[in-house]
Amino acid sequence: MNTADIDTPALVVDLDAMERNLARMATFARERGLRLRPHAKMHKSAEIARQQIAAGAVGVCVQKTAEAEALAAGGVNDILITNEVVAPRKLARVARLALQLAARGGQLGLAVDSSEGVAALAAAMEGTPATLDVYIEIDVGHGRCGVAPGEPAVALGRQVASHPRLRLAGLQAYHGRAQHQRTLAERVATIAAATQATALTRDLIEAAGLGPLCITGAGTGTFALEAASGVWHELQAGSYLFMDADYAGNEADPQAPVFEHALFIKAQVISRQADRAICDAGHKSHAIDSGLPRVAWPEGLTFANGGDEHGILRAAQPGGPLPAIGETVWLIPGHCDPTVNLHDHLIGVRGGLQAGQVERSIRVDARGALT
Amino acid sequence: MNTADIDTPALVVDLDAMERNLARMATFARERGLRLRPHAKMHKSAEIARQQIAAGAVGVCVQKTAEAEALAAGGVNDILITNEVVAPRKLARVARLALQLAARGGQLGLAVDSSEGVAALAAAMEGTPATLDVYIEIDVGHGRCGVAPGEPAVALGRQVASHPRLRLAGLQAYHGRAQHQRTLAERVATIAAATQATALTRDLIEAAGLGPLCITGAGTGTFALEAASGVWHELQAGSYLFMDADYAGNEADPQAPVFEHALFIKAQVISRQADRAICDAGHKSHAIDSGLPRVAWPEGLTFANGGDEHGILRAAQPGGPLPAIGETVWLIPGHCDPTVNLHDHLIGVRGGLQAGQVERSIRVDARGALT
Repeated sequence: MNTADIDTPALVVDLDAMERNLARMATFARERGLRLRPHAKMHKSAEIARQQIAAGAVGVCVQKTAEAEALAAGGVNDILITNEVVAPRKLARVARLALQLAARGGQLGLAVDSSEGVAALAAAMEGTPATLDVYIEIDVGHGRCGVAPGEPAVALGRQVASHPRLRLAGLQAYHGRAQHQRTLAERVATIAAATQATALTRDLIEAAGLGPLCITGAGTGTFALEAASGVWHELQAGSYLFMDADYAGNEADPQAPVFEHALFIKAQVISRQADRAICDAGHKSHAIDSGLPRVAWPEGLTFANGGDEHGILRAAQPGGPLPAIGETVWLIPGHCDPTVNLHDHLIGVRGGLQAGQVERSIRVDARGALT
Repeated sequence: MNTADIDTPALVVDLDAMERNLARMATFARERGLRLRPHAKMHKSAEIARQQIAAGAVGVCVQKTAEAEALAAGGVNDILITNEVVAPRKLARVARLALQLAARGGQLGLAVDSSEGVAALAAAMEGTPATLDVYIEIDVGHGRCGVAPGEPAVALGRQVASHPRLRLAGLQAYHGRAQHQRTLAERVATIAAATQATALTRDLIEAAGLGPLCITGAGTGTFALEAASGVWHELQAGSYLFMDADYAGNEADPQAPVFEHALFIKAQVISRQADRAICDAGHKSHAIDSGLPRVAWPEGLTFANGGDEHGILRAAQPGGPLPAIGETVWLIPGHCDPTVNLHDHLIGVRGGLQAGQVERSIRVDARGALT
């Protein structure tokens, strides 16, 4: 099957580009002696997670218990839930999954940021023969979850260490907003502050005899900075594999590998007016939380929001050509993660978008896995 | 099962409120002698479509062939695709579905706005024993799809009428942007212009001996205006059933019934900091294309975007109370349609959100139906 035969709209992965990205990040981590634990909330696919692990990743991250369950069902054995889970029924699932992964020689990890959360987790793990890797999430400036760095994190560490079924594994130290700060100088300053807070907290907890800690975090926009800090042991970047339109707006960091766009929406023009062409891809086919998609091909077109099921294409230059009814348009989504979550399958192609071949369908195992 | 037992995040329908909305719109249309054909792109559920039809709707609208197939499989017999379909493989599916619905005593309709589209449709229908209802989509000011009103629409009407398997059924005349114009005066002016363009086009086509035409269109923000115009025969509003946070920002039209919010996200607080509570519902659980959700309960909270899987709740008044870890939060999504599309099931409850009972799970049959 040729790429020309893919029905629209469809989410298409350029496998050649994806595998180059995968290898570049694996090499980056290996050369620096760092662990790579890519965030699978981006691709939600057990098949891709296994490919990352085969290339050297220690495991993957997820945000939700249901994502961890879906990837474990697909053969992924080492999973860190980089998020808080506090509901007793969910924690019972966490405990079951920890046991299941341990039986396969794997490991489950979970972030905590409250005394209530640790108590509920300990209660859920009581009586199971497995142990859970627990990471204290500290707020390194992102302003979302995370206990304050320093003494509050030490107190939480003591609480974790007091429970026999919980192993204090490390610190979850991720600065999400830094990923999209446009200038390198802003990102350098933000990660410098995060580094200081993280190192201080690590030193206090290790001085209390509760170490050694694995420091985990970093995303696609900043991982070279965390890697260079000497503080982080493990990188969680996920978007590097597909690269969305939004990341292309960042000033590049010369210390980071260059990643290529590997995720595209194939769309078709279904209506033509004098000043615009309308395609069949709206925001039910791609997420727009981080901006609209860019038109990868044909060149010279802008994309405007046409609602749930339409995109409006205009010539970037007045009088420039517009595609005809029936023609194909390739879009680069603004944000990979929630875009993938709108689709049940990714269509993996080789040999380029225009004249390539469809190699395989990749299941989005954790699509809609919210709980 | 009580509403307290619903795992989070989940999409919950207040069935009492939904059924009041359903009855109010059915009464509105019946009292004016108008046909009601609610847009099912909003709920994507065959069960809800059948409930609307049982209350008097003539059928439903959808935007995609795959949506029509999913609802037809769920027992819906009269479906209008209010959108252009031009790909030959998709049109072959349209032809099959037309035949299938006709065999059940139902009917399929499709919008067209180009000569190329009509030719491709006629080719797909050739040789089938069914006829397809074809609606000329005219651009009444929305600026998306649609042929220009007046002579261009007449030419397209002649082309449709020349094909024995196509029945020129009417005009698709919908102004999407008008739905969210905030003042009633703006909406009145916009629909007045749309009315003029639609009536002119209708008169020209009927004068050419190609009538009578059914004029179909209107959404939740303007339907009382189209209803009062004397031009529209059929109303396509969909959001009235659930009502999203965005529609609540419109100045009310005293001629329209009052609809209630009936769709909610149940979420849970998973992290607490001094100035904020973080809940487990981000934009993978609700669409934010038309703005962030509103917090329905507890009162006095604002919602800030916390990314894919988090919402950040702050006190609207400085020093106001914040919910504790583990507490429930109810959100009203900014935009129903793409929010429903993120979920496989809606959880239907009776007796209110806080202390009600779960009555049933409603399948989102056309979730992800993009093609």
